[in-house]
Amino acid sequence: MMNEKVVKLKSLLTEIYDLERAEAVLSWDQLVMMPSGGAEARGRQMALLKKLAHEKQTAPELGRLLEDLQPVADNLNSDSDDACLIKVAMRDYQKAIKVPASFMGEFAAHTAATYEAWVKAREAKNFGVVASLFGKSLEFSQQLAQFQDGYQHLADPLIDQLDEGFTVAMIRPLFAELRNRLKPLLIRIIAAQQVDDSCLKQNFSEAGQLQFGKEVITKYGFDFNRGRDDLSVHPFTTSFSIGDVRITTRIQLNNLNDALFSTLHEAGHALYEQSFASDLEGTLLANGASMGMHESQSRLWENLVGRSRGFWEHFYPRLQEIFPEQLAKVSLETFYRAINKVEPSLIRTEADEVTYNLHVMIRFELELQLLEGTLAVKDLPEAWNEAYHNYLGVVPEDHQQGVLQDIHWYGGTIGGNFQCYTLGNILSAQIFEAALATHPKIKTEITQGEFGTLRNWLTKEIYRHGRKFSASELVQRITGKSLTIEPYFKYLEDKYQEIY
Amino acid sequence: MMNEKVVKLKSLLTEIYDLERAEAVLSWDQLVMMPSGGAEARGRQMALLKKLAHEKQTAPELGRLLEDLQPVADNLNSDSDDACLIKVAMRDYQKAIKVPASFMGEFAAHTAATYEAWVKAREAKNFGVVASLFGKSLEFSQQLAQFQDGYQHLADPLIDQLDEGFTVAMIRPLFAELRNRLKPLLIRIIAAQQVDDSCLKQNFSEAGQLQFGKEVITKYGFDFNRGRDDLSVHPFTTSFSIGDVRITTRIQLNNLNDALFSTLHEAGHALYEQSFASDLEGTLLANGASMGMHESQSRLWENLVGRSRGFWEHFYPRLQEIFPEQLAKVSLETFYRAINKVEPSLIRTEADEVTYNLHVMIRFELELQLLEGTLAVKDLPEAWNEAYHNYLGVVPEDHQQGVLQDIHWYGGTIGGNFQCYTLGNILSAQIFEAALATHPKIKTEITQGEFGTLRNWLTKEIYRHGRKFSASELVQRITGKSLTIEPYFKYLEDKYQEIY
Repeated sequence: MMNEKVVKLKSLLTEIYDLERAEAVLSWDQLVMMPSGGAEARGRQMALLKKLAHEKQTAPELGRLLEDLQPVADNLNSDSDDACLIKVAMRDYQKAIKVPASFMGEFAAHTAATYEAWVKAREAKNFGVVASLFGKSLEFSQQLAQFQDGYQHLADPLIDQLDEGFTVAMIRPLFAELRNRLKPLLIRIIAAQQVDDSCLKQNFSEAGQLQFGKEVITKYGFDFNRGRDDLSVHPFTTSFSIGDVRITTRIQLNNLNDALFSTLHEAGHALYEQSFASDLEGTLLANGASMGMHESQSRLWENLVGRSRGFWEHFYPRLQEIFPEQLAKVSLETFYRAINKVEPSLIRTEADEVTYNLHVMIRFELELQLLEGTLAVKDLPEAWNEAYHNYLGVVPEDHQQGVLQDIHWYGGTIGGNFQCYTLGNILSAQIFEAALATHPKIKTEITQGEFGTLRNWLTKEIYRHGRKFSASELVQRITGKSLTIEPYFKYLEDKYQEIY
Repeated sequence: MMNEKVVKLKSLLTEIYDLERAEAVLSWDQLVMMPSGGAEARGRQMALLKKLAHEKQTAPELGRLLEDLQPVADNLNSDSDDACLIKVAMRDYQKAIKVPASFMGEFAAHTAATYEAWVKAREAKNFGVVASLFGKSLEFSQQLAQFQDGYQHLADPLIDQLDEGFTVAMIRPLFAELRNRLKPLLIRIIAAQQVDDSCLKQNFSEAGQLQFGKEVITKYGFDFNRGRDDLSVHPFTTSFSIGDVRITTRIQLNNLNDALFSTLHEAGHALYEQSFASDLEGTLLANGASMGMHESQSRLWENLVGRSRGFWEHFYPRLQEIFPEQLAKVSLETFYRAINKVEPSLIRTEADEVTYNLHVMIRFELELQLLEGTLAVKDLPEAWNEAYHNYLGVVPEDHQQGVLQDIHWYGGTIGGNFQCYTLGNILSAQIFEAALATHPKIKTEITQGEFGTLRNWLTKEIYRHGRKFSASELVQRITGKSLTIEPYFKYLEDKYQEIY
């Protein structure tokens, strides 16, 4: 007999899930469909759904029920859905009730104002326009962290929101080691003869780009009966249930790179979301293990698969068929090198695999210094430029290319935003290595445009579990080791040694 | 100084409005965008939003506040926004609290099951498949009516839900009179030489049909910065705020009539919704005065404007330009007669202006008899066929063309569903006559493809008021008379005397 309290718990959690996903529908519509006139009411409607979800997340009724269920959980197999559900729900609840609802409301209102100011600041290319609101965001972020207890670094509770269980003490040495090993690789690459990627900068029709993207992600296993791909200003993935997972694509006519790899990236996120076990539907376990783990899957399908030579051995002829005028005379080798060109640059989202992590580390370090109080807000633009000079040897011409580049700091907390990208890269290689060790034929299948073995293995080992286990637990289960940069660095070195 | 309690009332009402409109976004997405895999969770999510809205609609806090505000309302100008808001909110509240939440939940679950069964019954063309669920729906409808008090006929509370203030006692004689006067007109038309509408049954491209529809409704004043037009299986209008009003269109390649006039119809609904005074945003006054009044505006723009000779004097050359192959050799006169062809038929939504009301009256009478208990559910298919024979001289070949035709009885109450269509027709002519009396140049403007004077007059007299006044009050304010069929019958007679 199913425990009545477990049934009650699931019904409470499903209401929270459904409010959150209803809000996600409104948000998707806002970004993909909504006419401009709808903006004001839509903002109000989304805020209401968030408020109602938060009320339910912190309801004393939920707390009492979770208390009552602790002995039940202790009697269950600790890997069972119900045991994990009770454990994770309790963890979320404990964190949520520490933050007053009034604080959440004020912070949300402040964030909306900051976002507006950021849009203006970007136009004016002037951080000064948003600096005082940024300062206030920093204070909100520090307060938000301080509501939690038992942390070592003020950034830890913020990191924990997206990458549960990770701390500054774990991440800093990992990133330092990676940076030390990337440095000589990058120096070698820059010294080598540069790659010509002009073949990607021709005119590529929207219809052709969409068609090719759709064909590839269908092969990846993206299920269009349980999802969509639409156009939007910035590509993203969202999910309203396991049966309705949507990605978006942005087309640049004169840059084949952009839509193609962002589509493969978002499809990686979507495969994860479409592959949760159906038993988890409607609960907080129908989520990724962490942002880093989520990012590992987007990066795996984008880079380890999608930018590999084997992948293009299969798909390049088809791409040439769609764009004969542009690509008929471009060899596979030229194309492969072009899509893997390494070049230090100013914009994170356009960075290649080698330099990408340096963009992330710059932001991660600046966040920590801001939170610690060792960097003043007014000095941030200069610190940003200095870091770019030190890490990448390039310097932004203005604040838009610099400190105003990413939305993250202007749409939420300052702190905890960026570590997931590099954790994702590191995880992607460690996971892919384990997949290849179990099923060496994956390499061959990729050259045939087949991905079933890889996808099934990922589903079995990661996707179906949703949020039952943390990212660290999953890595341990899969590889028998904790997170390590070795596979990732080896992957980069092997790949780029051959190209450069 | 703004009354604090009025501010509080508006804030409570806006939460209800926002939950309802968030549900409308989910519903629009379900019908226009959602992949099939999303259906189950979406149904759950929409039900939750409805439940939360209903909880807030019946919250004792709202009742107490409305009580407290009665003296405030009495001291305000009775035409003021705030006085109307308090009055209408109180009326809604009094009705809502009479219905137990548990009843609403059970009825909603039953309705969902009935809808599913109806889809199957239609496929099987067999009313028997859904008959017992239909019987239960009838019981639910009777119970729902009985929660209210002070009604004369059991259908009155159901009619009141969509057409506030109207009763069987008012509608029956109105319909009887209209039927009596339609009968000889229809007999005359049938005896005359029939119109050839084959020019509408050629192959018309989707892109061309959409383009023309978009051009016309833009001229009507539909604001695409505050709305959209998308494809869906059945055309409808929905609204998420005054700034985001959406219509949908269905294209039949071999029938120009369908998309064209449904687009003009939905645009009429949308003009109403886009033209509420912005002060009403977020409250229950940002709604049409009644379903009948709403329908009057869709019918006005579809028929009185969109099927008029003057309209086509302006637009037909443009339509010929878009479809030269199909229409270059078809004269304006032939086309005008084709789109106004009268022919007794089986399907309400495809009916012409003369016979349309007979379809409505059949359903209205059957609803009353079912509620009264003078017609048994098992006898309904036969009664339907008999009524069609009596009213229109045609008999359905099967239940799909007959009693299973409309969704209304299988997606909600039995009772109160259909009167609005004929009330809308009657209202449309009475209102249009008043507009022409005030601004005779409207006729000329229509022949020039200009609609500003008409639209501005409608906005001033009807649209901007939203739900501040009832349909009957609006008619009285505009025409100085109560609802009457004279203008409508005169319109039909003048128009069809000339065609037939």
